[in-house]
Amino acid sequence: MKALQYVEVGKAPEIREVPTPEPGPGEVRLKITAAGACHSDSFVMSLSEEEYSAFGYPLPMTLGHEGVGVVDAVGEGVHNVTLGEPVAVYGPQGCGRCRACAQGSENYCPYAADLGIVPPGLGKDGAMAEYMIVKDPRLLIPLGDLDPAENVALTDAGLTPYHAIKGSIDLLVPGSVAVVIGVGGLGHVAVQILRALTPATVVALDLSEEKLEFAREVGAHHAFLSDAEAPARIAEEVGAGPVAAVFDFVTNAKVLEIIQQLAGPRTDMVLVGAGSVERSVGLLGQPYGSRVRAPYWGTRPELMEVFELARSGQVSVETERFSLEDAPEAYRKLHDGQLRGRAVVVPSVS
Amino acid sequence: MKALQYVEVGKAPEIREVPTPEPGPGEVRLKITAAGACHSDSFVMSLSEEEYSAFGYPLPMTLGHEGVGVVDAVGEGVHNVTLGEPVAVYGPQGCGRCRACAQGSENYCPYAADLGIVPPGLGKDGAMAEYMIVKDPRLLIPLGDLDPAENVALTDAGLTPYHAIKGSIDLLVPGSVAVVIGVGGLGHVAVQILRALTPATVVALDLSEEKLEFAREVGAHHAFLSDAEAPARIAEEVGAGPVAAVFDFVTNAKVLEIIQQLAGPRTDMVLVGAGSVERSVGLLGQPYGSRVRAPYWGTRPELMEVFELARSGQVSVETERFSLEDAPEAYRKLHDGQLRGRAVVVPSVS
Amino acid sequence: MKALQYVEVGKAPEIREVPTPEPGPGEVRLKITAAGACHSDSFVMSLSEEEYSAFGYPLPMTLGHEGVGVVDAVGEGVHNVTLGEPVAVYGPQGCGRCRACAQGSENYCPYAADLGIVPPGLGKDGAMAEYMIVKDPRLLIPLGDLDPAENVALTDAGLTPYHAIKGSIDLLVPGSVAVVIGVGGLGHVAVQILRALTPATVVALDLSEEKLEFAREVGAHHAFLSDAEAPARIAEEVGAGPVAAVFDFVTNAKVLEIIQQLAGPRTDMVLVGAGSVERSVGLLGQPYGSRVRAPYWGTRPELMEVFELARSGQVSVETERFSLEDAPEAYRKLHDGQLRGRAVVVPSVS
Amino acid sequence: MKALQYVEVGKAPEIREVPTPEPGPGEVRLKITAAGACHSDSFVMSLSEEEYSAFGYPLPMTLGHEGVGVVDAVGEGVHNVTLGEPVAVYGPQGCGRCRACAQGSENYCPYAADLGIVPPGLGKDGAMAEYMIVKDPRLLIPLGDLDPAENVALTDAGLTPYHAIKGSIDLLVPGSVAVVIGVGGLGHVAVQILRALTPATVVALDLSEEKLEFAREVGAHHAFLSDAEAPARIAEEVGAGPVAAVFDFVTNAKVLEIIQQLAGPRTDMVLVGAGSVERSVGLLGQPYGSRVRAPYWGTRPELMEVFELARSGQVSVETERFSLEDAPEAYRKLHDGQLRGRAVVVPSVS
Repeated sequence: MKALQYVEVGKAPEIREVPTPEPGPGEVRLKITAAGACHSDSFVMSLSEEEYSAFGYPLPMTLGHEGVGVVDAVGEGVHNVTLGEPVAVYGPQGCGRCRACAQGSENYCPYAADLGIVPPGLGKDGAMAEYMIVKDPRLLIPLGDLDPAENVALTDAGLTPYHAIKGSIDLLVPGSVAVVIGVGGLGHVAVQILRALTPATVVALDLSEEKLEFAREVGAHHAFLSDAEAPARIAEEVGAGPVAAVFDFVTNAKVLEIIQQLAGPRTDMVLVGAGSVERSVGLLGQPYGSRVRAPYWGTRPELMEVFELARSGQVSVETERFSLEDAPEAYRKLHDGQLRGRAVVVPSVS
Repeated sequence: MKALQYVEVGKAPEIREVPTPEPGPGEVRLKITAAGACHSDSFVMSLSEEEYSAFGYPLPMTLGHEGVGVVDAVGEGVHNVTLGEPVAVYGPQGCGRCRACAQGSENYCPYAADLGIVPPGLGKDGAMAEYMIVKDPRLLIPLGDLDPAENVALTDAGLTPYHAIKGSIDLLVPGSVAVVIGVGGLGHVAVQILRALTPATVVALDLSEEKLEFAREVGAHHAFLSDAEAPARIAEEVGAGPVAAVFDFVTNAKVLEIIQQLAGPRTDMVLVGAGSVERSVGLLGQPYGSRVRAPYWGTRPELMEVFELARSGQVSVETERFSLEDAPEAYRKLHDGQLRGRAVVVPSVS
Repeated sequence: MKALQYVEVGKAPEIREVPTPEPGPGEVRLKITAAGACHSDSFVMSLSEEEYSAFGYPLPMTLGHEGVGVVDAVGEGVHNVTLGEPVAVYGPQGCGRCRACAQGSENYCPYAADLGIVPPGLGKDGAMAEYMIVKDPRLLIPLGDLDPAENVALTDAGLTPYHAIKGSIDLLVPGSVAVVIGVGGLGHVAVQILRALTPATVVALDLSEEKLEFAREVGAHHAFLSDAEAPARIAEEVGAGPVAAVFDFVTNAKVLEIIQQLAGPRTDMVLVGAGSVERSVGLLGQPYGSRVRAPYWGTRPELMEVFELARSGQVSVETERFSLEDAPEAYRKLHDGQLRGRAVVVPSVS
Repeated sequence: MKALQYVEVGKAPEIREVPTPEPGPGEVRLKITAAGACHSDSFVMSLSEEEYSAFGYPLPMTLGHEGVGVVDAVGEGVHNVTLGEPVAVYGPQGCGRCRACAQGSENYCPYAADLGIVPPGLGKDGAMAEYMIVKDPRLLIPLGDLDPAENVALTDAGLTPYHAIKGSIDLLVPGSVAVVIGVGGLGHVAVQILRALTPATVVALDLSEEKLEFAREVGAHHAFLSDAEAPARIAEEVGAGPVAAVFDFVTNAKVLEIIQQLAGPRTDMVLVGAGSVERSVGLLGQPYGSRVRAPYWGTRPELMEVFELARSGQVSVETERFSLEDAPEAYRKLHDGQLRGRAVVVPSVS
């Protein structure tokens, strides 16, 4: 089969012919119907050789941690799935047996790292291929009649903001203000989720007028440039007083400056971007009762809820489609910031 | 192997020689180290032929929905379990794939009934035998070094009150009063769980001085006879004002009368006993803001939490042990109310 | 001043000339700008002499537990309010000092009844007058620039469903179904609140096509006649499986029958109508994990949140206006079911 | 009357004769029965002149933000309090009218600062005197028959850890580990609250064997020196794996290092000490799903709950008593770390 693989550190990924994998006992093989490209893939491919091997990732590695497909073959001992059933792959896999996993919060399994359990495409072969092996049927989430290409990105670009927002939901009461920083693949879904789940006023910040327009299209009540004047503009046009929650999909020092000014008593500062920034914490270093959170991906039941939002038309992902052959091009555009929304790879019908 | 089976409606269960089952693909065979006898077994055996077949239960049926054992053999495709590993069986099994199941709340799977999925010992062969088949490894909860016979009853007699109490936990603040009605197999664990999880004052009600003494031994701050004077006695000796929550392990009309008088604004009336009673509901029929709840068994993560309570010595079950051969005797004593705590069957070492 | 008073049991209320009240120390006098008429007033006026005196209500009594006005005069020791400030009266007043009151949940004050503390218009003089005394400034909720007549009904017809819905909010996830029974003064606001706060599919039930049309106008996804076929129709057109929550603003035996059929595991049955019905409860009498709740009115912070929903245009009340002189007519129409939405009395400008 | 006042920046506070204050309309005068000395007083007295005036604090200022007394006189318009009633003063006062205040969360009132509303003893005259004025009766929490001197410190040293712990309560399930850093005035109460409210294993860290012994006396399951080896010692003796929550009453760079090592997925890092430290935050800077919180003091209903814990004997404060004349000595010992527990000033009977 064909697969998009990262072959050499620092080089662009390539389409390669590899053996079609066979499902072992307890495993499921999917025929991939769509796979999404994500900034975290770019992040991984930006690592130096040293960093890459510190992560323990193999080479070559088939990319793709967002994947949907149909059940194509099952190994011995697999029940509860049907051949031909359309499913999505739950990415942040855990050990499956601890308390976190029993709750469906495999994204916070404290044992996964030590057991070498990693998401597909981020340490083992992923979904950017014609076929893919899934280790356990519990990781398959029914997709129903949702369109694969339109919805595959929900497995990360939908699930991640959904989980981030659920953690602040008690704060997002009527009259509250929620700020989304970065209206890209995740942020533009965050705006929609906030509108669907909460009565909050939604303010979006980004760097270009085009992005601000995009934010308004997907439901933001207000959209401003994310510069030093943003806090003052929000105070003036949206209302004085602290915001209830900031969902930051960028996470750098400049953005933290803005968050600092928007925050007040009990503000949730939710850092979702793949970054690390130095900041003051503690009673004299952050507003009273505020929280700095770093949620990661989401839970299995939450992914089901995200699909329900799509099913009822409350959330949709802006996507640009590529064939598997053109997948390298998708990553090029992603890297160069030339995408509006999410790049989705659709393996050609065989 | 030997198994305790319910063979004919209306007759006592008997020990029978049956084939030792083989695990199919995806299944696990346990060598049983302990199994608990429960009032719900008695309830099932009290049904008429008509009622029994309405439940769709088979005959003969090996009893026992509380079971622990060691992994003895696995079918194809089973991973994540180790031969010899001590585990408990999670009883209230669901479809395993819906949102409730993904949360670990298989006890509330809305599809189980239609799919014919039932707990072991309550519709299919259970744990009162030398060996037992478990359909999926996700239903096995690590037992660690907990003693099998002392802790097997926690799978129901511990899990059920734990789940019931967790649903009221926000009400059980300092200064609040929690009432436990019925200090039997479940109730005496409920008292301990309330002491471990909450700062509430715990009041136990039962029908004999012996049971009241038992309640005090396991941690009740107060214990009174559960008669018509109970509410007045509580008001006088514990404090006036509504109680925060009543956990009722009996559920009949007389007990509902008592609950009615104890309840006030926001009281949780938690009916755990296998009963059905007529009562007034609605704004003019129950106290403002009160709730009548009927929780059922518990979730997978909760069972893990219950075992942790046992591990730290905060909860223990009063048990009386029987060999498998004497299991019929255990049910006789259970039926006649001659047990203090829980009857546990320990298959003889082979 | 003029006031609409209930003067004699069984007779229609009348406009009477009474002394304009003076605020004592700590009290505030409002000049009423709008007052709402409610079914509970009709209920009170339907009581027999015996029942009425059992409630301990005085005669004559100025009606009106929904009131907004401007601060007109303050007694000694009142600070924190400004003359001329527009405010709404928080109705379900408590002792003000207990834990429930400290949380703002005065609606569940366990001491109010014994202390003789009652809502205005339901045991003491209410808002259907030119002026009104409020005992404590903490009971005044800032109204800001909201129109008095359009929003006065939110103090009950908005606050009550808001509080009822908040108690079930964790159940109302994407893909869930919420059913509203009775699309009258409270129910039509409930539909809007559900749409604003949750991603649930909202189904409304009522007795006439006109009401169903009204339900759709205010945002219900589906609306059906509330007859014996309703559950089947919902299963067919909305989806099989239990509903997450039913909000019942009627509460009689017929409606409980419908609720019974809609409910399944973990369903919230929320009875808001001023009724009392006999039904089975307990593990064998209600669905596993279900709750029967009877929430009453709402909390002080919730009333603020309701006004925020109005401010952002997410909730509005359908109102029909009457002068104070025509207030008896308002109650006649309310009693005869001739109102769509809520009757609001606007004292004429003096 | 006599009062302990901070008179000149950098000088020790002194006992001075000042006019006994009169309650204005709406105000209450307490005759102080006990007042607590706190590290935050020391912090204030350590400020430079510039810093002190930046805080906007007056000079002279009567110290003491922990106070209990009996109602001695009331101004016009005060109802709901009784002369002679023993009460505690709720310190973190807000505007009293916003949503946060309506919930009883005056500690997070977003308007207090702009309105110049400050706690007694931290910006206006406090409780270290024979008499004290309280602005509004809502700020008086019934003390009942609790001993004033033994319990006054609960208004801060009890309320602050109680509020901090409540914010992490969902994480403190059976089997979880909670770490308390700093077993001083607040920390030794935190240990007791954790034992009363949760089934968690409680580990205390401090700098001297004497403090560790103190921690064990008040209920810590384990106590270790808070040095660089602490994380390894906890892993070895308490159990590997991340801790559920760390409650830090110190908050400096060294302590943050320890917290960093203890934390893992979903760990709550709760910084209660009056400090500010630089640390990495964000998805790559803190463990997945972890939170850095800075709770401040506590809410009105929580203070009631803390008193209930004292009433039932679940929490008590280690105190050392001083007469008002010896109050400067109390602060000397506090500053020099010579106190075990809390210094309490008891004005001599007049």
